[in-house]
Amino acid sequence: MKECAIKKIAVFTSGGDSPGMNAALRAVVRTAHHFNIECYGVREGYNGLINDDFTKMGPRSVKNIINQGGTILKSARSMEFKTSEGRKKAYDNLQKYGIDSLVCIGGDGTFTGAKIFSDEYPDIKVIGIPGTIDNDIFGTDNTIGYDTALNTAMDAIDKIRDTATSHNRVFFVEVMGRDAGFIALNSGIATGAVDILIPEQKDSMEDLFNNFRKSEISGKSSSIVVVAEGEELGGIYELAKSTKKEFPDFDIRVTVLGHIQRGGSPSCADRVLASRLGYGAVTGLMNGENKVMAGMRSNKLVYTPIVDAIRKHNAIDEELIAISEILAI
Amino acid sequence: MKECAIKKIAVFTSGGDSPGMNAALRAVVRTAHHFNIECYGVREGYNGLINDDFTKMGPRSVKNIINQGGTILKSARSMEFKTSEGRKKAYDNLQKYGIDSLVCIGGDGTFTGAKIFSDEYPDIKVIGIPGTIDNDIFGTDNTIGYDTALNTAMDAIDKIRDTATSHNRVFFVEVMGRDAGFIALNSGIATGAVDILIPEQKDSMEDLFNNFRKSEISGKSSSIVVVAEGEELGGIYELAKSTKKEFPDFDIRVTVLGHIQRGGSPSCADRVLASRLGYGAVTGLMNGENKVMAGMRSNKLVYTPIVDAIRKHNAIDEELIAISEILAI
Amino acid sequence: MKECAIKKIAVFTSGGDSPGMNAALRAVVRTAHHFNIECYGVREGYNGLINDDFTKMGPRSVKNIINQGGTILKSARSMEFKTSEGRKKAYDNLQKYGIDSLVCIGGDGTFTGAKIFSDEYPDIKVIGIPGTIDNDIFGTDNTIGYDTALNTAMDAIDKIRDTATSHNRVFFVEVMGRDAGFIALNSGIATGAVDILIPEQKDSMEDLFNNFRKSEISGKSSSIVVVAEGEELGGIYELAKSTKKEFPDFDIRVTVLGHIQRGGSPSCADRVLASRLGYGAVTGLMNGENKVMAGMRSNKLVYTPIVDAIRKHNAIDEELIAISEILAI
Amino acid sequence: MKECAIKKIAVFTSGGDSPGMNAALRAVVRTAHHFNIECYGVREGYNGLINDDFTKMGPRSVKNIINQGGTILKSARSMEFKTSEGRKKAYDNLQKYGIDSLVCIGGDGTFTGAKIFSDEYPDIKVIGIPGTIDNDIFGTDNTIGYDTALNTAMDAIDKIRDTATSHNRVFFVEVMGRDAGFIALNSGIATGAVDILIPEQKDSMEDLFNNFRKSEISGKSSSIVVVAEGEELGGIYELAKSTKKEFPDFDIRVTVLGHIQRGGSPSCADRVLASRLGYGAVTGLMNGENKVMAGMRSNKLVYTPIVDAIRKHNAIDEELIAISEILAI
Repeated sequence: MKECAIKKIAVFTSGGDSPGMNAALRAVVRTAHHFNIECYGVREGYNGLINDDFTKMGPRSVKNIINQGGTILKSARSMEFKTSEGRKKAYDNLQKYGIDSLVCIGGDGTFTGAKIFSDEYPDIKVIGIPGTIDNDIFGTDNTIGYDTALNTAMDAIDKIRDTATSHNRVFFVEVMGRDAGFIALNSGIATGAVDILIPEQKDSMEDLFNNFRKSEISGKSSSIVVVAEGEELGGIYELAKSTKKEFPDFDIRVTVLGHIQRGGSPSCADRVLASRLGYGAVTGLMNGENKVMAGMRSNKLVYTPIVDAIRKHNAIDEELIAISEILAI
Repeated sequence: MKECAIKKIAVFTSGGDSPGMNAALRAVVRTAHHFNIECYGVREGYNGLINDDFTKMGPRSVKNIINQGGTILKSARSMEFKTSEGRKKAYDNLQKYGIDSLVCIGGDGTFTGAKIFSDEYPDIKVIGIPGTIDNDIFGTDNTIGYDTALNTAMDAIDKIRDTATSHNRVFFVEVMGRDAGFIALNSGIATGAVDILIPEQKDSMEDLFNNFRKSEISGKSSSIVVVAEGEELGGIYELAKSTKKEFPDFDIRVTVLGHIQRGGSPSCADRVLASRLGYGAVTGLMNGENKVMAGMRSNKLVYTPIVDAIRKHNAIDEELIAISEILAI
Repeated sequence: MKECAIKKIAVFTSGGDSPGMNAALRAVVRTAHHFNIECYGVREGYNGLINDDFTKMGPRSVKNIINQGGTILKSARSMEFKTSEGRKKAYDNLQKYGIDSLVCIGGDGTFTGAKIFSDEYPDIKVIGIPGTIDNDIFGTDNTIGYDTALNTAMDAIDKIRDTATSHNRVFFVEVMGRDAGFIALNSGIATGAVDILIPEQKDSMEDLFNNFRKSEISGKSSSIVVVAEGEELGGIYELAKSTKKEFPDFDIRVTVLGHIQRGGSPSCADRVLASRLGYGAVTGLMNGENKVMAGMRSNKLVYTPIVDAIRKHNAIDEELIAISEILAI
Repeated sequence: MKECAIKKIAVFTSGGDSPGMNAALRAVVRTAHHFNIECYGVREGYNGLINDDFTKMGPRSVKNIINQGGTILKSARSMEFKTSEGRKKAYDNLQKYGIDSLVCIGGDGTFTGAKIFSDEYPDIKVIGIPGTIDNDIFGTDNTIGYDTALNTAMDAIDKIRDTATSHNRVFFVEVMGRDAGFIALNSGIATGAVDILIPEQKDSMEDLFNNFRKSEISGKSSSIVVVAEGEELGGIYELAKSTKKEFPDFDIRVTVLGHIQRGGSPSCADRVLASRLGYGAVTGLMNGENKVMAGMRSNKLVYTPIVDAIRKHNAIDEELIAISEILAI
C-alpha cells in the first residue's frame, strides 16, 4: 500500500437508519486504527458536523455493536446542512480537529450533501458507504441493510400467510420503498405474492383484478398482494376498497409493515457487506479515492463516482418482474 | 383408565386462528387413535358441521403440522350456527356419522356456540380447548397461541426500538387485544415501553403526558408506547395527534402490528401446551367430562365448566401494571 | 407497604448464565431505585463479593439490557466461597459498604452458597431468584432462561428435522440437562421426537429399539431422538453406535446442541418472569422475607424457603412422558 | 423467445440438501407449466432416475413449499449411478417417459454425474442449478442455501457469544465446510471471531496463539474461534487441547454446530436466487443451453459450462481474510 496521504477521518451515519450501519462504523474505526489513522465519530449525521458533536473513537468504542441494529452514532436529516452557512460551520469544525477526510454512511440524500460539500471544500476528501434498506443506490449489488429488511418483510409476510390461509383471506401488505420497488418485488417473490405493485411499473387495477381471477381459477383460496409505499394506484387502503367493490365475496385485510423493516440485528450478508465497505472506504481514501462511493459487485470491491451513485439507479430487473408473475400462479 | 364411553369424536378450529391450533389438532387425533376412538376433522369451524365438511383423520393426517402456524382445518366465524336451524343441521350431520363428542378449539365465541349446542343436544358431549392469542379465557394460565403472539409482538417492538433510538423518536405501537390487554402489557414490559394502554385500565391523556415528562427527565431520548387495540382513549392515531400537540418537538411515528401477531411457527411453550390440552380433551371425554374446557394451571391439567370459561375472565394482575410503571423509568 | 427495613442491597448473578438474567438485574436495580434503596452490582458472582468487585447501580446502568442474553455482571463458579475464609471476606466487604441484603440470581449451587452464608451471617438478608435454563428449581413454575432455551433447542431440532427428512436419516440430538430432563422432554414433544431420553426415567436400549420399530411400521422414514446430557444409557455416541448395530440400514447422525442453548435474546415469557421476580425479590426483602426464593406459580408471585428450593425438585410430570409417547407415533 | 425445442423435463435434488432447494423446484415446475412443458419430479436424486421413482408435477404440486427447508423430492447420494449399468437404467427410464431434459439441483458431485451422463447420452439435455450450503461452485456469486446457512451459523455463534462473554470463556466453534471456508470466513467476520481457520489457508498453531495474545492485550476477556470442518491443523478438539496447554488459564469450550446448518426456512436471498435459477434453468434449456449451470453474477442470470462449474472454484478473497484479521482486534 502506498504512503498514506490521510491523517484524520470523521465518520457519521445519516438519513434513514439501516441494519448494518453499526457494522460499517466498526469496520471504519478499526481499519483506521490498523493503519494508524485517527478517527472521529460524529453524532446525528450532518447536524453533528455543524454542532461540533465529535468523539474520538478507537477499537473498543465499537465493540459489541456488529450485531446491533440502528446506529450508535444516531442519524438525522439536517436542514441546516442544506444552507451554505451550515456547511461553513461544518467545515470550520473539521478544520479545528484537523480532519482531512469524511466517511459518509447513508443513502442518496447523504451522498448529495457530501458531494455539494466536497465541491465547496475540496480539501476535505469524501467517500460514501451505501447504507439504506431501499437498495436504490447505483454502484453496488446491494446496499447495507437491504438484505436484513428483505428478511424482516418476508418473515412478517410468512406469518400473515398462515392466518390468510386459515381464513381464506386476501391481504394487502405494504412494505417500504417510496421510490424503489426492490423490497416489494423480492419479498413478494419470496412469499409467493399473487401480485406485486411497485413504483417502477405502471399497473392498472384491471391487471390486479385479472391476477385475482387467475388465482381463483388455479384454486388458490387465499392471496397476498405486496405493495410498495411508492406504488401509484392510490395507496393500499384505496386498493383494498376497489378490490372489495370488484370482488364483494373477498374477505380483505390490510397490513402496513412499517418501521419494523428498519430495525433488527443485521443479517450475515449485511454484516459482511458493511465490514467490507467500511474497510474499503478507509483503504480507498488511503489510495487517493475521493468523491466516490465504495460498493460490492459480484463479491469484489468497486468504487463509483458519487455523482453516479446519486444520479443513476439500479433498474428493477424486467425479467424478475416476469418471474414474479410466472411463479405466482 | 375406566372403560371408554365415547366412540367417535369430531374436532374443529373456530374463531380467530392462533399458532398452536395445529399442534392441538395433532394431539387430539393421535390421542384418539391411541385409545381406538375414531376421529373426524371438520373444516372451517361450525360452518363445516353445518355443511357436512368432515374428513376422517388418522395419525398420518397430522404429520409435519406441529410446527406450522394457522390451522389446516381452517377456521371461520359462522352466522348460521347462531340460528337453531343451523345447529339442527349440525346435529343431523353428527348423527349421520355416529359422532358422540365434539372437541372445539377456539376462544369464547367458539365456547358459547358449544355451550348452546350442548344445551340443545345433550347427547353430544362437548369439550373446549382454549386457542386464541388474546389469553382472555378463564380456566387456564395461558391460551394456545398467546406465548407465540407475545414473542412476535416483542420481536417487532425490539426492531422498532432500534430505529426509534437511532432517530430519537417516539413510537406508538398498536398490538392486538380488543377486550384484553395481556399482549400489550406483557410485550410492553418486555420491551421497556414508557407507557402501556390497555382496555382494563382507565388512563387519561394526562397520565401518558406525565410519563413522557418523567421519561425526558430521566434522560431517555426515545420512547415506545404500546397500545392495545381496545384501549379507550380514542385510538392510536388520535393518541399520536394529541401527543404531538402537547410535545411539538417530538418526532412521532405510529405502527400497527396487525395480523403478523396471529401467524408464525408456534413457540415451544405453545406446542407443548397444545399437545397437553389436546391429550387432555380426549382423555377428559373418556373419563366422562362434558361441557368443560381443558386448561393448564401451574403445569397441571385442569377442567373448568365451559360456562365459567366464557363468563369469568383472567383479570390483569394489578401488580403487573405497577411493575410496568416502576421498571419503565 | 409497611416501612422498609432494608437500606442497601447487593445483587449478583452466579452459576451457569441464562437468558433473562439481565432482565432480572434490571428489575432489581430499578425497583430498588423506586423505593429509594441503594443498589450495588457485584461482578462474577461470589468471587466479586470476596474480591470487592462492587459497582453502584442506578436506573441508567441497566438501560438497553432487557433484551440481551448473558449477564452484564458476568457469572462464575467460586471455589473460595466454599471456604469459611472466603465467606468471611465477603461479609467484611458487605459490612464495608453497609449492605444489609443480598439478591442472588442463579441456580441451586448459588442458593446453597446463599443459605450457608446466611446461616453464618444472619444479619445479612438473602433472597434468591431462580435463573437457570434447566428448570430444576422447586418453588416456581419456570426458572428464568428455561423458556428461551426451550425455543432455542426446538428451533435447532426443527432445522435438523428438515435435513433428516430429506435424507431419511435418524438423528440423535443432545440437549442440555445434566440432572433434569425438562429441556429434553419439552423440546422433544415440541418437535415430535420418536423417543426422549432423560435422567429421571430409566430406559433400556430395548425400549428405544421398540420405538424405532413402531415408527418404521407407522411409515416414518426419518426419526429424531432427543437425549438429555444426563441420561444414563451411556452417552449419545454410544446410543448411536448400539442403534447402528441393531439397525444396520439406518443412516445415523449425532448432533450435540451445546452452548447455543445458554445464549440468545430472552423470550417474552422470560423477560416478564425476570421482571416480576426482580421486583418480587426487592419488595419481598422490604416486607421482611429472608432466606427465601421468589418464584411464580400460576401467574402469582410466591416465596419459598430457600432450603426447599434447593432440596426439593419439580418432578417431571409422568403424564407428560406418557403424552410424548402417544403423540410420537 | 424462439420456438421451444424441449417437451418434457425431469427435475431432481441430489447430494447434501440445502435450504432453497424446494424454492428452486417450485420455480422449475411452474416455469415449465407456464411454457407448456411437461415436468416430472424424481425422488431421491439419481436413485430415483434408476428406480423409476417419477411423479408428474404441476403448479399445485409445489404450493406452500417456497418457505420450507429440505427438499420434498428428498435427496441421496447414489453409488449405482456411478456405474454405467446404473446410468443405462436411468436413461431407459427417461426414454420411457419421453423426457428430453434434466434439471439437476445439487453440488459438484451432482454436476459430475450429470456431465458423465450427458457425455454418454447426448440426446438428453442437462442443466445444473447450484444447491449447496458450501458455496464452492464456480459460475455464481452464491449457491442456493449458502446465505441461509450463514445466517444459521451466525445466529448460533451470536448466542454462544452471550455465554462466552458472561463467563470470560474461549469457544472453538466448528462450522460446515469440508473443502471450502466460505461459511467459516463469513460467519466468523460477522461475529467478530478472534481467528478463523479454513481449509484454503495454511495456518500454524503459532498464528492462532498470537491472535489470542493480541486479543488479550487489546482487553478482550472472551474469544471465539471459528473453525471450518476441513481446516488442517488436526481437528477442533485437538486445537482446543493445544490451546489449553499453551494458555492454562483459559476456560475453553468446544461446540460443533453440525446439521442445524443444513436446515431451516430459506432466507429471502435464497428464495429469490432459487426462483431465478429455477426459471433460468427451464428458459435456458428452451433457448438451447445444454451442459451448463445456471448462476447469478451481480444480479444477472449467467450460464457456465458445467465442466467449469465442477473444475474451477471460487477462490476465497484474500482481501477478505485480511479484513477478518484487521477487524477482529
